[in-house]
Amino acid sequence: DFAAKDRIIIGIVGGDGIGPFITSEAQRVLEFLLADDVKTGRIVFKTIDGLTIENRAACGKAIPDEVLAELKTCDVILKGPTTTPREGDPWPNIESANVAMRRELDLFANVRPVSVPEKNIDWTFYRENTEGAYAVGSKGIHVNDDLAIDFTVTTQDGSERIIKAAFDFAQKSGKNKVTVVTKANVIKTTDGKFLDTAKAIAKNYPTVEMDDWYIDIMTAKLVDEKRRSQFKVMVLPNLYGDILTDEAAEFQGGVGTAGSANIGKQYAMFEAIHGSAPRMVEEGRGQYADPCSIIRAAGMLLVHIGYSQKAEQLQKALDICGLYEKKLVLTGRETGATGSEYANYVMETLSNP
Amino acid sequence: DFAAKDRIIIGIVGGDGIGPFITSEAQRVLEFLLADDVKTGRIVFKTIDGLTIENRAACGKAIPDEVLAELKTCDVILKGPTTTPREGDPWPNIESANVAMRRELDLFANVRPVSVPEKNIDWTFYRENTEGAYAVGSKGIHVNDDLAIDFTVTTQDGSERIIKAAFDFAQKSGKNKVTVVTKANVIKTTDGKFLDTAKAIAKNYPTVEMDDWYIDIMTAKLVDEKRRSQFKVMVLPNLYGDILTDEAAEFQGGVGTAGSANIGKQYAMFEAIHGSAPRMVEEGRGQYADPCSIIRAAGMLLVHIGYSQKAEQLQKALDICGLYEKKLVLTGRETGATGSEYANYVMETLSNP
Ligand SMILES: CC(C)[C@H](C(=O)O)[C@@H](O)C(=O)O
Ligand SMILES: CC(C)[C@H](C(=O)O)[C@@H](O)C(=O)O
Repeated sequence: DFAAKDRIIIGIVGGDGIGPFITSEAQRVLEFLLADDVKTGRIVFKTIDGLTIENRAACGKAIPDEVLAELKTCDVILKGPTTTPREGDPWPNIESANVAMRRELDLFANVRPVSVPEKNIDWTFYRENTEGAYAVGSKGIHVNDDLAIDFTVTTQDGSERIIKAAFDFAQKSGKNKVTVVTKANVIKTTDGKFLDTAKAIAKNYPTVEMDDWYIDIMTAKLVDEKRRSQFKVMVLPNLYGDILTDEAAEFQGGVGTAGSANIGKQYAMFEAIHGSAPRMVEEGRGQYADPCSIIRAAGMLLVHIGYSQKAEQLQKALDICGLYEKKLVLTGRETGATGSEYANYVMETLSNP
Repeated sequence: DFAAKDRIIIGIVGGDGIGPFITSEAQRVLEFLLADDVKTGRIVFKTIDGLTIENRAACGKAIPDEVLAELKTCDVILKGPTTTPREGDPWPNIESANVAMRRELDLFANVRPVSVPEKNIDWTFYRENTEGAYAVGSKGIHVNDDLAIDFTVTTQDGSERIIKAAFDFAQKSGKNKVTVVTKANVIKTTDGKFLDTAKAIAKNYPTVEMDDWYIDIMTAKLVDEKRRSQFKVMVLPNLYGDILTDEAAEFQGGVGTAGSANIGKQYAMFEAIHGSAPRMVEEGRGQYADPCSIIRAAGMLLVHIGYSQKAEQLQKALDICGLYEKKLVLTGRETGATGSEYANYVMETLSNP
C-alpha cells in the first residue's frame, strides 16, 4: 500500500532510440505534477541508464545484472522502449528486455486501457504477462536443421492471479463483465487450463458476467462497429493479449497513443506500447518523438502510487491536447513540434485547465 | 494436373449443424455449372455422410477411419462446417475435424482471399496449415495440476512449401509483393525459422518484393484505412493465419462471407470459414442458413480443378447477388429467404447474366 509509504522511488529507464527523449519529457510532467512531494522528499526520481542495446549486447543479457539490481531498488518504473534484437541486426539475438523485465520482476498483469468515447469504446485488457508462449520464448529447440520446437507454458497460479485481477477490476469499476479470450478449441492443454480456470473463478463473482471467445473471431469482433461496445474487460494469455491490444489501440489512434501498465505484487513498470524508432535518432530527429504514449503511461503510474486525482488532471489535460497529439503522431513531422514543446503544452494546460 | 483427367471425383461432406443444408445448395450450384461434364461422367459427385459429431464422438476420433478412407478416394472435397468439441460439451474433447483433415490429407496451404474493391482491399492470405501451434495442439502435457505445456513445431520443409506457394502466387498474379507475418522477436526458434526461410526463398524471386511484420502490429495495420492497401499477399504460420484471416474477413462482411481453400500435393479441400451454428438447426431454421461462404468455396474448387471460366461466371453472379447476400447474413432472418432461394437466385443470375 503506497498511502502508508513516506518514500516512493520512481525509476526512470530511458531505453533505446527515442526512449531517453520521451521518458525525460514524461519525467518533467511527473515532476511538475508531484512538485510538492518531490520537495518533501516523498517522491524520489532515480535515473537508470544502463538498459541500452549496446550494454545488453556487450554482456549478452536481456537485462545487465547491475541494471536489474537497480530496478529492484525502485517502487515503480517508467520505461522507454527498448530495441528487441532480431536476426540480421548487428546485435546478438538476445531476449527482449521488456519480456525479461516482466519475468524478472514478476509483473504478471499487463493492463492496457483503450478508450474512444465517440466510438463508444471503453475496453480494458488484462494480458497475462509472464508465461504462455512467452515463458520460454527465446529458449526453443532446434532439434536438427529441419525441426524447430517452441513451448507454451501455462500454470494454474499464473492463470488464477491474472484472471482474478480482471474480475476484481470488473467488479470494482462496475463494468461487471469479463470476456475470456483463448484458442482453447485447438491449443487445448494450456488455453484449456486458462479457460477452465476462468470458469471456476467466475463462480466467485456472481455480479460479474463472463463470456468467452476464440482469439481469431475476437479480432473480427473488435472491427464490428455495431457489436464491439459489448466488450468491457478482457483477460487473455500473453500472446493473444499482445496481438489484440495492438489492434485495439489502432481504434484510439495507433499504438503510439496507448500506455501499458505491468503490475506485480512487489514492482510495477509503466511503458509506451510503441517501439524505439532508432531511425528517428539516426536522422537527428529524436527531439521530435511524440511523448504522448509514455505520458499516458506516467498517468497510469500516478494512479498506481495513489495519486489518482493528479492522474485525472493529467488525463483531462491530455484530452485537451488530444487533437494536437493526433496531428503530432510518432514522427512529429506533421506539426514540426518537438516532444518538449508538447510536454510544455501539457503542463500549460495543467496550469490553466 | 486436372486437365488430363477424364474423371474428377468431388466429395461432398455435409458436416454438422447447418453444414448439410448449405453444402447441398453449393452442390446444386456446382451441378448446374458443370452440367455438361456431369452428363459425360467426367465430373462425379460423391456424398460422404459420416463426418458428424455423433459419429466422431462414438469412435473417439476426429475423423472416423471409414470417412478418412472415403475422403482419400476423392480428388477434391467440399466440406461443410464441423463442430469442434470443447470442454463442457456433451461430446468427448476430441480434436477439431478441420485440423485433423488438414493434417491427414497433408493440405499444407490454406489460401484465403479477401477482396473489398470499394475499400481498395485485395488480400490473399497463405496460411501454413499443418504445423506450428496446431501440429500437436491437442496433445500437450498436463505435467501436474499446476503446469500445462503445449508445443509449437515448425519444420524447414513445412515452411518452405507454403512460402514458395505464396511467392509463386505473388509472381504469377503480378501482385509481386509478399508480406511475412510472424512473432519472431519473441517466439524466436520456430517463428525465427519461418522468417529466415522466407528471407532465403525471397532471393529466388527477384521481381517479388518482400517485407515482414510482427503479428501484433499487423492486426493494427489491417485496420489502418490509409495504409492497408499496401498489403497484397501474406504468408503466415498456422495460428497467426487463423487470427489474421478472421479479422480480414470482417472488412468484407464477416467470416460468413469468406471461403477457404486447403490445398496439398494430392488432395484439396474447400470450406466455409464460419461455424456449424447448431442452434439454428435446433430451432428448425437450418434451411435459412446462408450458403454464400460455401458457394464461394465452391468457386475456389472450380478454379482448382481447371474450370476457371466457370468460376469467373460464378464470381460475377455472386457479385450481383452481393447486396442480397449482405442483407441475408448468416441467420437469414433479415430477408426471410432460405438458402435454397439464395442458390436459386445465384443460378438464375448465372442463366441471365
Ligand atoms: C517488444 C515486444 C517484445 C512486446 C511484446 O511482444 O510483448 C511488445 O509487442 C508489447 O506488446 O509490449
Ligand atoms: C474451427 C477451427 C479449428 C479452425 C481453425 O482454428 O483453424 C477455424 O477457426 C478456421 O480458421 O478454419
